[in-house]
Amino acid sequence: MPGNSFGQFFRTTTFGESHGGAVGVVIDGVPPRQTIDLSVVQDWLNRRRPGQGSLVSQRQETDRIECLSGLQDGMTLGTPLCLMVRNQDARPDDYAALRDVFRPSHADFTTEAKYGIRAASGGGRASARETIGRVAAAAVASQILKAVVPGIEVVAWVESVHQIDAAIDPLTVTLEQVAQSEVRCPLPAIAKAMIQAIELARADGDSVGGVIGCVVRGLPVGLGDPVFDKLEADLAKALLSLPATKGFEIGSGFAGARMRGSEHNDSFVELPGRNGPTLTNRSGGIQGGIGNGAPVTMRVAFKPVASIAKPQHTITKDKKKVTLDGGVPGRHDPCVLPRAVPMVEAMVWLVIMDHFLRNNALQLNFGKV
Amino acid sequence: MPGNSFGQFFRTTTFGESHGGAVGVVIDGVPPRQTIDLSVVQDWLNRRRPGQGSLVSQRQETDRIECLSGLQDGMTLGTPLCLMVRNQDARPDDYAALRDVFRPSHADFTTEAKYGIRAASGGGRASARETIGRVAAAAVASQILKAVVPGIEVVAWVESVHQIDAAIDPLTVTLEQVAQSEVRCPLPAIAKAMIQAIELARADGDSVGGVIGCVVRGLPVGLGDPVFDKLEADLAKALLSLPATKGFEIGSGFAGARMRGSEHNDSFVELPGRNGPTLTNRSGGIQGGIGNGAPVTMRVAFKPVASIAKPQHTITKDKKKVTLDGGVPGRHDPCVLPRAVPMVEAMVWLVIMDHFLRNNALQLNFGKV
Amino acid sequence: MPGNSFGQFFRTTTFGESHGGAVGVVIDGVPPRQTIDLSVVQDWLNRRRPGQGSLVSQRQETDRIECLSGLQDGMTLGTPLCLMVRNQDARPDDYAALRDVFRPSHADFTTEAKYGIRAASGGGRASARETIGRVAAAAVASQILKAVVPGIEVVAWVESVHQIDAAIDPLTVTLEQVAQSEVRCPLPAIAKAMIQAIELARADGDSVGGVIGCVVRGLPVGLGDPVFDKLEADLAKALLSLPATKGFEIGSGFAGARMRGSEHNDSFVELPGRNGPTLTNRSGGIQGGIGNGAPVTMRVAFKPVASIAKPQHTITKDKKKVTLDGGVPGRHDPCVLPRAVPMVEAMVWLVIMDHFLRNNALQLNFGKV
Amino acid sequence: MPGNSFGQFFRTTTFGESHGGAVGVVIDGVPPRQTIDLSVVQDWLNRRRPGQGSLVSQRQETDRIECLSGLQDGMTLGTPLCLMVRNQDARPDDYAALRDVFRPSHADFTTEAKYGIRAASGGGRASARETIGRVAAAAVASQILKAVVPGIEVVAWVESVHQIDAAIDPLTVTLEQVAQSEVRCPLPAIAKAMIQAIELARADGDSVGGVIGCVVRGLPVGLGDPVFDKLEADLAKALLSLPATKGFEIGSGFAGARMRGSEHNDSFVELPGRNGPTLTNRSGGIQGGIGNGAPVTMRVAFKPVASIAKPQHTITKDKKKVTLDGGVPGRHDPCVLPRAVPMVEAMVWLVIMDHFLRNNALQLNFGKV
Repeated sequence: MPGNSFGQFFRTTTFGESHGGAVGVVIDGVPPRQTIDLSVVQDWLNRRRPGQGSLVSQRQETDRIECLSGLQDGMTLGTPLCLMVRNQDARPDDYAALRDVFRPSHADFTTEAKYGIRAASGGGRASARETIGRVAAAAVASQILKAVVPGIEVVAWVESVHQIDAAIDPLTVTLEQVAQSEVRCPLPAIAKAMIQAIELARADGDSVGGVIGCVVRGLPVGLGDPVFDKLEADLAKALLSLPATKGFEIGSGFAGARMRGSEHNDSFVELPGRNGPTLTNRSGGIQGGIGNGAPVTMRVAFKPVASIAKPQHTITKDKKKVTLDGGVPGRHDPCVLPRAVPMVEAMVWLVIMDHFLRNNALQLNFGKV
Repeated sequence: MPGNSFGQFFRTTTFGESHGGAVGVVIDGVPPRQTIDLSVVQDWLNRRRPGQGSLVSQRQETDRIECLSGLQDGMTLGTPLCLMVRNQDARPDDYAALRDVFRPSHADFTTEAKYGIRAASGGGRASARETIGRVAAAAVASQILKAVVPGIEVVAWVESVHQIDAAIDPLTVTLEQVAQSEVRCPLPAIAKAMIQAIELARADGDSVGGVIGCVVRGLPVGLGDPVFDKLEADLAKALLSLPATKGFEIGSGFAGARMRGSEHNDSFVELPGRNGPTLTNRSGGIQGGIGNGAPVTMRVAFKPVASIAKPQHTITKDKKKVTLDGGVPGRHDPCVLPRAVPMVEAMVWLVIMDHFLRNNALQLNFGKV
Repeated sequence: MPGNSFGQFFRTTTFGESHGGAVGVVIDGVPPRQTIDLSVVQDWLNRRRPGQGSLVSQRQETDRIECLSGLQDGMTLGTPLCLMVRNQDARPDDYAALRDVFRPSHADFTTEAKYGIRAASGGGRASARETIGRVAAAAVASQILKAVVPGIEVVAWVESVHQIDAAIDPLTVTLEQVAQSEVRCPLPAIAKAMIQAIELARADGDSVGGVIGCVVRGLPVGLGDPVFDKLEADLAKALLSLPATKGFEIGSGFAGARMRGSEHNDSFVELPGRNGPTLTNRSGGIQGGIGNGAPVTMRVAFKPVASIAKPQHTITKDKKKVTLDGGVPGRHDPCVLPRAVPMVEAMVWLVIMDHFLRNNALQLNFGKV
Repeated sequence: MPGNSFGQFFRTTTFGESHGGAVGVVIDGVPPRQTIDLSVVQDWLNRRRPGQGSLVSQRQETDRIECLSGLQDGMTLGTPLCLMVRNQDARPDDYAALRDVFRPSHADFTTEAKYGIRAASGGGRASARETIGRVAAAAVASQILKAVVPGIEVVAWVESVHQIDAAIDPLTVTLEQVAQSEVRCPLPAIAKAMIQAIELARADGDSVGGVIGCVVRGLPVGLGDPVFDKLEADLAKALLSLPATKGFEIGSGFAGARMRGSEHNDSFVELPGRNGPTLTNRSGGIQGGIGNGAPVTMRVAFKPVASIAKPQHTITKDKKKVTLDGGVPGRHDPCVLPRAVPMVEAMVWLVIMDHFLRNNALQLNFGKV
């Protein structure tokens, strides 16, 4: 199967280059008779969009969603939804000078090596703009799941930027708290320090990385498969498929590797509490690949943005040395983290939706077909 | 697609419970006319097998591989290979007492919740014994790839145990160095300290976790897909599908999230060096989801083994409190790391093999079909 | 996997209802650096389009193809192609009266039963308009294959209409001969009789069915798989997925079931001739599921169009009897066969393209990746 | 995806060459807590087995089924079932003389062309022995479906042999009636004539083909998908994937292509009758790709067996002419039809089971997950 689809039951196929005619998504496997509000999809796109503040890319695109199929009077037909956004702010000239240069830590070299051709401008499919389709699909998935599973929610936040860390409680953090800060860190004081770190990098013509935390609360018990398609395995794939990601943790993560079993084990309790069926939740809500009802907690590492304004040495397609004069910082973000928050949530919704339908398939005892 | 298969072109389907009739694998998508030495498969199983030293589980199984199909005179027919190992050391009685208990941080609770039934003894599909099929498949994949891509190699090692860390150079570490130590850490002095940490845990009736490092050297440029099936995304899924894993890093990993772009970026150079086409290799050999020819470097976090000899509080299926008297440590490892080394290598080989065939499919200009 | 995609390597996902915003297709798995002429795609759509003569539906749509992604200066990028056609001639009012009626032998009843909702007008996904995406994808596939496999060609023709049969030689029939007749039967005298049969049905407010023949010439030896994905099995599925099809034959077909082995067997000959490696070609170019180099010959049965002008008895959603007064014949064809010719060719191209790439994946000995 | 698997939710992967160590199947996607009687599986294998009478192959194999995984005390665990039959009657010497010969209308030539290697004896994967895995999987699927959908049944029968036809009523024919005749035709007088035709062919060292009819009764409304995965399309693929098949019809089939719409259309009625929701059933129980509750009626054409005792001209691998002296008829059937009856039923069960689970996945309103 080619690589532009995600999910097996709720199957999301994205299309579109960053500066071509349009970007979008076809979603196959949408259950019928579900109510979808396109303005919610637009809200998701707005959250994902660059140009929302001083921190992020200055590229201005309206990113208006258009639904080409699958909906009738706001209700799903059970047929494929095609959601599309026209590219309106393409400025290929900005990129013409870079046509034959392999920018450091970009996909230029590997795309050229693999395909022998690459989109003449922008990052082609490697651009963050490709994630528009993913976010739109998640906006659909989340509306369906919230209607069927009352109380389910996915919240992501910026947990660290460069050297600044925030300690967030995954049990209580809310989407509203995250939204209050431009940098999408729910702790105001830390958020301020993060913004300073980003501004400092921008002033230096540089960029910074960071970590995004994410939690799923209210997930039904039983999603996930015990062998290859463990819930954490599919989450890991989903999140590492986002541009610029370098690491993934579930539950205790790398810190858990430093523990002993007696410290790490989550004891089951008689009455479910804030950690679901267990006293503690170092498992991160998943045991043996299957959700246990506790909050699913994750962390995702993002490298610093590769596009920087500082001069850099590299080579051209013809193996000639060249110095990238980054004097003009271009339209790129010094820090991708704030914009990546909805992308992380989106991929998590897509994983959950897919496993939800998959789990359904095997439930034979619900009465009549 | 149900969850017991991995890969789309080199498709590995494992079967078997830990204490049923047999465990094994069917591999579909095996290229024809490839030479396979079954003794190499047996060597892989031996490396994976428990009971190899004082550090690991005392369960003794000969684990003799049997090939039921797909090979003729040591050559692949292009038909499915079925490789099987009979279960010989099943002792269900050891587990009878646990039939209704939800062991802390095991898959008992979630399996029961999802399926309403679970294997009466052992971990069922959640057992590490399931990985026999994966390791056997990788033993096939690696033989094929090594013949077609001279110089390709995958090396994994124990990088940390509990609080003991080893700094290993992924560019030079060899399989032989790893094999010399019982704990599979290539630095003898550190290995000794790791063994002490494991023995200490065993003496306490406890267990320890750790980190495994892994590198692919000699990977052809161009494997991996730019969007959902990024090479690192598929590696993340593959490795997080192993039992007891909690985290994954590619290249700079979480440490990379603390860097600035000017520190992190890998400059392209005129002549490929030890880091492939770039001066440094914080990308971990993958850019935009596609391998760039540099070594692919990964780290995987393993939690401490859940089965410990210390007493633990938990509940039964009927929600009654119970204290697991771990006085008899059972046949479980105090540290899964050494045995997990071939499992990590196995999953990496399976990912590479799959992407190798996938990449092939789109290469139209090689002459005639 | 949901049901709106076809193919595993050259993966075609269609979207769009007959009277919604647009219909189209996303093709994933397109090899890079292939030249695609969009005017060829438009030509295919024109061949498929209703309203081309007195024989077919009077619904007028320009069906202008728009390419949203995947192409740059007429060359494939190796990224998904999205091809779209806006719906311009939607007249929901024509269908309002039918909203609650289950038209005989239409998909109204089953769509309602399965989904609990259906597109308010037209046939939704059951409409022949859905095939626009298939035909567009085939127009892409055929251009790629023809460049890589010189001499390959797919020709379909109308072999029978109602009671009128044409005996066509699959070894010599050409696209040009087929195109010369409005009814797409390459024998002028028979074509004339077929047109009369269609006009007669129209005059009666009735419709007629028929059979389409199809041949693939120049197919490389070796495409197809020996077990479930036999080439003829995938062709059968492809063609039975077209609306209104009731039967499929490969090679000798049902007539072959009346023969003895000594009559039916195709003897291999020293020098390949017009029937490829065999003296005769009752196998239809496929043996053991794999193409043998002989022409692949098929026949597909189409039922008479369900929409007729004659009065018909049926029921409504509420189980009330109703008589469909077909006094106004609507915009439907009395015979779908001529328009179905490019649809048959399209599905055959999609099967071949998919198996071509699939076969490629296992060819390891072509040198370097 | 390689070609040895069938189905997406109830995923059947067969393995094994006709004369290797074993043949078998791994079934993934088996719902948990379903009761499976292995003696029913054995009964299916016995029905499929050669050597049951004078009409069929004299090859004697006990074909004892062994279950390696997935069952516990006769109940499914929700894990993969591996079912295996050892090959016991392999006589490679019988085939040694044929090693380099391309037998007419066998898979020898194409296998050699595609893979460059083939099983040294027997038909490898092209052998009817491969269907053991399919039949075993169907024996599992049918037990599960019958428990969940009371009244569902699949019945196949021999409808014609060579020139002898039987007119069978698909609404009333039973498995018992079919089983009473050695040739598996439920009309005793016609069965007798068929047996004579087969004996006549055997006496001539020849073989005969024929047609198998099949019906599904009691299928829940709503199975099947409206576009590519129409129920009839998946049935066509399933049945054309059986060895020796040349054609498929659903409902009215090729005869329907000779009708007018007013004759062919199935009117909906107020009260469901023997034809389900329609007065007649030319649709064959499927409309728009989705089952409508009427009996699903099919016909499958089988060519005469390619292995005959008469002398035949062909060539060797080295393109030398050779005459196959068929003086020894070998162990092959003069007519495959009787043995193919359970194979046809098996493939139909596998299609239904897969669509049943698939349909389940999208039913969101059944309460709690």
